[in-house]
Amino acid sequence: MTTWLENAWYVAGWDSEVDSQPLARTICGVPMMFYRKMDRSVVAMRDACPHRLLPLSMGLREGDSIRCRYHGLKLGPDGVAEEMPIKTDPVNTRICAETFAVHERHRFVWVWIGEKDKADPALIPDLWPCSSDGWRFDGGYYPIASDYRLAIDNLMDLTHETYVHTGSIGQPELMEAPIETWVDGDKVFVTRWMPGVDAPPFWAGAMRQGGKVDRWQICEFLLPSAVIIDVGIAPLGAGATVEKHDQGVRGFVIDVMTPETEDTHHYFWGMARNFDIDDDGFTARFKTQQGGVFLQDKEVLEAQQKAIESNPHMKLMAYNIDEGGTRARQIISRKIKANQAEAAK
Amino acid sequence: MTTWLENAWYVAGWDSEVDSQPLARTICGVPMMFYRKMDRSVVAMRDACPHRLLPLSMGLREGDSIRCRYHGLKLGPDGVAEEMPIKTDPVNTRICAETFAVHERHRFVWVWIGEKDKADPALIPDLWPCSSDGWRFDGGYYPIASDYRLAIDNLMDLTHETYVHTGSIGQPELMEAPIETWVDGDKVFVTRWMPGVDAPPFWAGAMRQGGKVDRWQICEFLLPSAVIIDVGIAPLGAGATVEKHDQGVRGFVIDVMTPETEDTHHYFWGMARNFDIDDDGFTARFKTQQGGVFLQDKEVLEAQQKAIESNPHMKLMAYNIDEGGTRARQIISRKIKANQAEAAK
Amino acid sequence: MTTWLENAWYVAGWDSEVDSQPLARTICGVPMMFYRKMDRSVVAMRDACPHRLLPLSMGLREGDSIRCRYHGLKLGPDGVAEEMPIKTDPVNTRICAETFAVHERHRFVWVWIGEKDKADPALIPDLWPCSSDGWRFDGGYYPIASDYRLAIDNLMDLTHETYVHTGSIGQPELMEAPIETWVDGDKVFVTRWMPGVDAPPFWAGAMRQGGKVDRWQICEFLLPSAVIIDVGIAPLGAGATVEKHDQGVRGFVIDVMTPETEDTHHYFWGMARNFDIDDDGFTARFKTQQGGVFLQDKEVLEAQQKAIESNPHMKLMAYNIDEGGTRARQIISRKIKANQAEAAK
Repeated sequence: MTTWLENAWYVAGWDSEVDSQPLARTICGVPMMFYRKMDRSVVAMRDACPHRLLPLSMGLREGDSIRCRYHGLKLGPDGVAEEMPIKTDPVNTRICAETFAVHERHRFVWVWIGEKDKADPALIPDLWPCSSDGWRFDGGYYPIASDYRLAIDNLMDLTHETYVHTGSIGQPELMEAPIETWVDGDKVFVTRWMPGVDAPPFWAGAMRQGGKVDRWQICEFLLPSAVIIDVGIAPLGAGATVEKHDQGVRGFVIDVMTPETEDTHHYFWGMARNFDIDDDGFTARFKTQQGGVFLQDKEVLEAQQKAIESNPHMKLMAYNIDEGGTRARQIISRKIKANQAEAAK
Repeated sequence: MTTWLENAWYVAGWDSEVDSQPLARTICGVPMMFYRKMDRSVVAMRDACPHRLLPLSMGLREGDSIRCRYHGLKLGPDGVAEEMPIKTDPVNTRICAETFAVHERHRFVWVWIGEKDKADPALIPDLWPCSSDGWRFDGGYYPIASDYRLAIDNLMDLTHETYVHTGSIGQPELMEAPIETWVDGDKVFVTRWMPGVDAPPFWAGAMRQGGKVDRWQICEFLLPSAVIIDVGIAPLGAGATVEKHDQGVRGFVIDVMTPETEDTHHYFWGMARNFDIDDDGFTARFKTQQGGVFLQDKEVLEAQQKAIESNPHMKLMAYNIDEGGTRARQIISRKIKANQAEAAK
Repeated sequence: MTTWLENAWYVAGWDSEVDSQPLARTICGVPMMFYRKMDRSVVAMRDACPHRLLPLSMGLREGDSIRCRYHGLKLGPDGVAEEMPIKTDPVNTRICAETFAVHERHRFVWVWIGEKDKADPALIPDLWPCSSDGWRFDGGYYPIASDYRLAIDNLMDLTHETYVHTGSIGQPELMEAPIETWVDGDKVFVTRWMPGVDAPPFWAGAMRQGGKVDRWQICEFLLPSAVIIDVGIAPLGAGATVEKHDQGVRGFVIDVMTPETEDTHHYFWGMARNFDIDDDGFTARFKTQQGGVFLQDKEVLEAQQKAIESNPHMKLMAYNIDEGGTRARQIISRKIKANQAEAAK
């Protein structure tokens, strides 16, 4: 039994990370490698030659195929042998590297972990701000040496901004806004609605207008392991509500965590926004700044993971502020158990 | 069952190492952190926030309290919660970090490992030369990747000086002096009494007088894990004896070993002396020299630990010269068993 | 049960590596150290003092003996105590470091792993080109983080040259030559006989004659863990055959793998040749070039070992090209079982 949900799509990489040369990355405990074919669609294959297990990511690309760099076994993009080490030997097409369902969407390459025949792209988490007209999305990647669920806890509770991100995005006023947490199916929401507050400098600049505004922060957990945070401001009286708030300037902090092992994960982070979407300089500056903020989270999560290991008798406690993370973990656990019950049928 | 004695005081650090900002150090397998309050007394707390386990040593000091740098839980110096992550939430005073009894004495901060109600400062090993009038004490700290008992063996047998410390303090003449070992309660003594020998250069300089002298080296093991070595010379005929020898110049090599894990320990070393006690330059020069000598021991102990692990069928053998270390280990074992018998009542 | 054969000779080092100062090297799981006596014969001893286990390789050489650098126990080249830490103590000659049978041959120092009374130098693998008149031999050493048997597989199948050694020794034409594999007692042979081919540049230069030649590559596996590869060319019509081919220029690629642990090995590689044997510049240039080629193998073997560990459900598959390695592994296994049957008697 794993700590992550199977029969689910996980982000394997940014679309910009996967190219014709293979990218090696372990996803949910499986060493994989990813490359693009001539038509730019992505191939995901177990990163071990079926012959002598040399990582295929060390291999040579030929057309849409990959040739192992040890003895030259050539495998098609479907993983099936196309040429034996000795070219004149008859091809044994039962020789086959495991392949995985992949799909590209929302600027990410997603890989399906679980039963391949259930890999329906409709099940990819809806990160619409990452790929909608009128929105601009960019971000980065960090490997993090912690259980991926510690990152979910972190993102579903923004009180940590005050202490972890002191001097960057943390602001005491955020602490005073009431927090509401609710579950909607497999989603968890944590909202802070701050009506009639002073526009904070970043957002005033984005809207090019200061003064009193309605401000919001809405964290949303999506299975199997994403948190998107709807943030922004609208001019006072423009009619913004928790349900609908397109009146001012708006962004989504995008956070996707993909388990690498039980104790490590891949962290894909970014920002989608609906203002200044053609300003490349802003995009680059914001990414640099956001990368610095998330580096602080990486430091905290890795220290937390070590402390969990060196204090084995202690348990993580849940206070009020942890309700969002607790709910998200419950949904993951419930879904894992439902999958197991299904499999046991 | 541990290799170290519980219900005992261990040195956690030099008095100079512990300040208002927390010092993280694992003592006898327990991750701890230490800081000074406004009144300069020392707090020792498990280095994990009771909320989400982030090391408290990463926290922010406020008054005499510590605030976790993750979500801002504030704990008093007694470990009890003083403020929740959301300041307006009622404080749950059952939230509490584990604290440990600490006491400052002989220039060290001592922490009690075991049942807290038995933590009697009277049980702190008597390292009187480190804190007596007319004496000057200084030294340093090395982390050592070996079982702490290998250091006790090392210090209770000074024949190693010849080979480990060739070119520094090792001198063949020391090897010729007869060694006596005896046990007195929980203490072990190993003595070399050298009457009428030529004053070695270091000691002649200390006494500002050469020629024939009485010289001594008396190693004393003290529970749970200290060795102090009484060294010095007295003018011939001044009446120095093994029991009483304040006639000339005298020093104590101070060695305190605190287990970190079963395979690593903290080594606090230094020299207390009753001559030139106001000479800061001498103090600094001696510390540099002594640090170099003990670095040779660190190298030997760490190589020995590795060899023990890679030759698992071999046992440490005890020759005549090892009697001091053997006796010290026997006392530790006997005391551990006595504690267990006590606990089983 | 080990993955290597016991009661066999393994290379511990090049003759040039072992000198009067001890060389520490773990052979088949045993930490050993090697040094030369005054008469230049080699001593092999467990690298742990029988007293307190400090590696003897840290010790001081005295005459033909070694003195431990911790307490000065002095051991003769037979491992037997010659002097106690206190020189005046009577010597206990039951104190003894384990020694191992060693023999120097073919430019290597060989150590016997197994029952010492069976250590017959006649059992040393016959690497005659390394030490015969009219031949010149030189090479190098790499530690490799893989099971030693992966290196045997590698060397008994030269199809890997095309992909691993692209741009160095790999040449597509080699792939077209038919391969024959046969077993002769405890030996395995894999041959490629290429009659009437164009002399490749390296060999044409060696023979100082281009044009059509007969060319060969004959891999030979020898217990417990060596592969020598007979390579060369002869002028067309000179009468070279698979059995006898001294007509042209000839070399032996020498590969000896000594297990260090189950997952790591020592790789001793080189080239013996019967041409330009007095050309030191050629010898040095060839060694540099060969070292570069074998570094590519090291990279592949270490990646393969990691992939085996991270894909635990996958097995190494054997195709036609792997027959040589498969046969060699079978002989090793059969011999290990025979030894066990013998021991059980």
